[in-house]
Amino acid sequence: MGEMSVEDRLDRILTTEELNAFVQYKEGSDTNHKYLTGFQASDPFTYLRYENRSILLVAPVEKAKAENQSTADEVRSTAEFVSGDVRDDIEAEASIIADFVGEYEIERIGVPRDFDLYLAERLEDEGFSVRTVDDVVMEARKRKSESELAHLRDAQRATERSMERAQEIIRESSVVDGELFYGDERLTSERLRNHIREFLMDRQCALDEAIVACGTRSADPHDRGSGILRPDEPILLDIFPQHESGYWGDMSRTFVKGTPPEEFQEMYETTREAMDAALNVLSEGAGVTGQSVHDTVCDVFESAGYPTIRDGDVDRGLLHSTGHAIGLDLHEPPRLVQGAGELEEGYVLTVEPGLYDDDYGGVRIEDMIVVTEDGYENFNQFAYDYQV
Amino acid sequence: MGEMSVEDRLDRILTTEELNAFVQYKEGSDTNHKYLTGFQASDPFTYLRYENRSILLVAPVEKAKAENQSTADEVRSTAEFVSGDVRDDIEAEASIIADFVGEYEIERIGVPRDFDLYLAERLEDEGFSVRTVDDVVMEARKRKSESELAHLRDAQRATERSMERAQEIIRESSVVDGELFYGDERLTSERLRNHIREFLMDRQCALDEAIVACGTRSADPHDRGSGILRPDEPILLDIFPQHESGYWGDMSRTFVKGTPPEEFQEMYETTREAMDAALNVLSEGAGVTGQSVHDTVCDVFESAGYPTIRDGDVDRGLLHSTGHAIGLDLHEPPRLVQGAGELEEGYVLTVEPGLYDDDYGGVRIEDMIVVTEDGYENFNQFAYDYQV
Repeated sequence: MGEMSVEDRLDRILTTEELNAFVQYKEGSDTNHKYLTGFQASDPFTYLRYENRSILLVAPVEKAKAENQSTADEVRSTAEFVSGDVRDDIEAEASIIADFVGEYEIERIGVPRDFDLYLAERLEDEGFSVRTVDDVVMEARKRKSESELAHLRDAQRATERSMERAQEIIRESSVVDGELFYGDERLTSERLRNHIREFLMDRQCALDEAIVACGTRSADPHDRGSGILRPDEPILLDIFPQHESGYWGDMSRTFVKGTPPEEFQEMYETTREAMDAALNVLSEGAGVTGQSVHDTVCDVFESAGYPTIRDGDVDRGLLHSTGHAIGLDLHEPPRLVQGAGELEEGYVLTVEPGLYDDDYGGVRIEDMIVVTEDGYENFNQFAYDYQV
Repeated sequence: MGEMSVEDRLDRILTTEELNAFVQYKEGSDTNHKYLTGFQASDPFTYLRYENRSILLVAPVEKAKAENQSTADEVRSTAEFVSGDVRDDIEAEASIIADFVGEYEIERIGVPRDFDLYLAERLEDEGFSVRTVDDVVMEARKRKSESELAHLRDAQRATERSMERAQEIIRESSVVDGELFYGDERLTSERLRNHIREFLMDRQCALDEAIVACGTRSADPHDRGSGILRPDEPILLDIFPQHESGYWGDMSRTFVKGTPPEEFQEMYETTREAMDAALNVLSEGAGVTGQSVHDTVCDVFESAGYPTIRDGDVDRGLLHSTGHAIGLDLHEPPRLVQGAGELEEGYVLTVEPGLYDDDYGGVRIEDMIVVTEDGYENFNQFAYDYQV
């Protein structure tokens, strides 16, 4: 059952729920849509699963591209149903979809939970019965295929190379009056982020955003960082680019140029221990629970005297979950938190323990792993050291 | 009626449609949500309009921020209804929303057209009647308020300054063996885009993407451009950053370092004429139709012998609409196309005629304007010249 394709899952749920078809209408950029069809479009389009076949309904200008790229059995054009440009006109779109579905022997339609209520109303007006089904697409997405794993490895390899490059820039920079200089230029969060972005761009990865936070700025996990980078303080880097395949990389390291305070060194060592402990739990492989990974991390931190979110809202210590699944979205379910269930073979997750303190800044170490039958494979090889 | 607030519009439609309340549940980043509440969140939240009051239901960690930022009359927390973290758990979210709405005297609920069908089903299960209403939020968004106009002016001013900076870099660059050099570095699309991005970052604008396309690459309006910039060829720049207010800038110019072929010069002059003609139509002010602006542009191009999309699918000439509304989204309705209706006072639109040819590249000139009672105000002052 783990090996079931998303189409198999759809066909099974249609049978179980006594439905004739599954219809999904979404933005062309939607990741569930891309997963289900292999096709990414500029405009919304419709997916129909009917009698074990997948049929797309796309705008006329996208028909050729859809035929080339998509995994669907058939691609049809809205030009068969209407003339002219119907973008922004949801009423016209609804009529087209009703006409399209009406060409098949369909009475009872299953749709995803986030199907637009308006479309459902219009289809019901046309005599169809419409109701939501379980989220089989996201369920299928949790177990990555071999080709998805290859894309994620590529994305994370480029991310790791850019982290090496960032480390190199910090290493090669000089310290003048308590500020880092790279060449003749003051090294700021903005400049280092731009170096990382340019580096990734040459490796088919787009970086919209990245955290490059220095000193106490790094104590807030949501602060992207800005301004001058300084020695003897943490420089927290969290790099998460999107590879041209659509899959994401995501990796964090924390560096210090010089010597940080003893309290920071302790935070770093404890985070490293938590990382080792989390990976040790994951080495049991498929069947281990996400909660047990998170609990282990919390145990390490709490034994060392740091509070964790397991105790509720805290303002220092571990402020976030231990990780999240990743794929066509940067953050996918499941997350490594309290209550998280069993991890299966093929789940790809970040593991990212961290400690934060308003007086000393933050530490985060983050790798990406895939769960295997009897362990895990770490997509990262980058050492866990703060010294550059 | 043009001056009606979005809340007035909601109250009116609730009365007309005999509904007790309007409920909107969306991602925290959704722009309709932000418009309606003044609040942008990390997680999905719920907006309720009931008895002429606006009430928000947000995650506990976002309550204080919502109280500070939002325009709502009251902010409530999901902690009143459930304990623990319910992100990723749509079933729990649905129960919370049903409990929340159930605290008021509500039977008949109006929701936006893209309301999740699953939530509607769950609310119906709890005895509420749920149906979609006209999109009054997007309708209200078309007419920008004074404070929105101020944000859009700020965004477009920063965009124009970054365009000046880009022009300056091209002007100051030297030509070596048919390639542009800025200082010691080859000037590529990527580098120029990074210069623009850094410049905008210092002016509270984030630039995810921008078109910097040289030569025949500029003939494809969707090509962002890459690689070496060359003299005597068009360099098409389309810069669209998001200002920290949430509002977008959007501006295009086409430059040539040196002397372009005569055919390009003709394309440029014709595009400039089309721009002048479009602005001339807009000088009639509110009441003019979007179609008449587009038709005028098409007329200029067609008289000069260039095909336009008014003739259907074309592969050279004018390949896109003449412009689009802009605000919290980069592209908002209405667009300046065939069939577009009357423009009202306060509509903010891009005006962007362009010509494309696989042999000579592309030209696009794009300004942002606001429609006024008896004309328009152009947010741009940048000259229409290709010479740098």
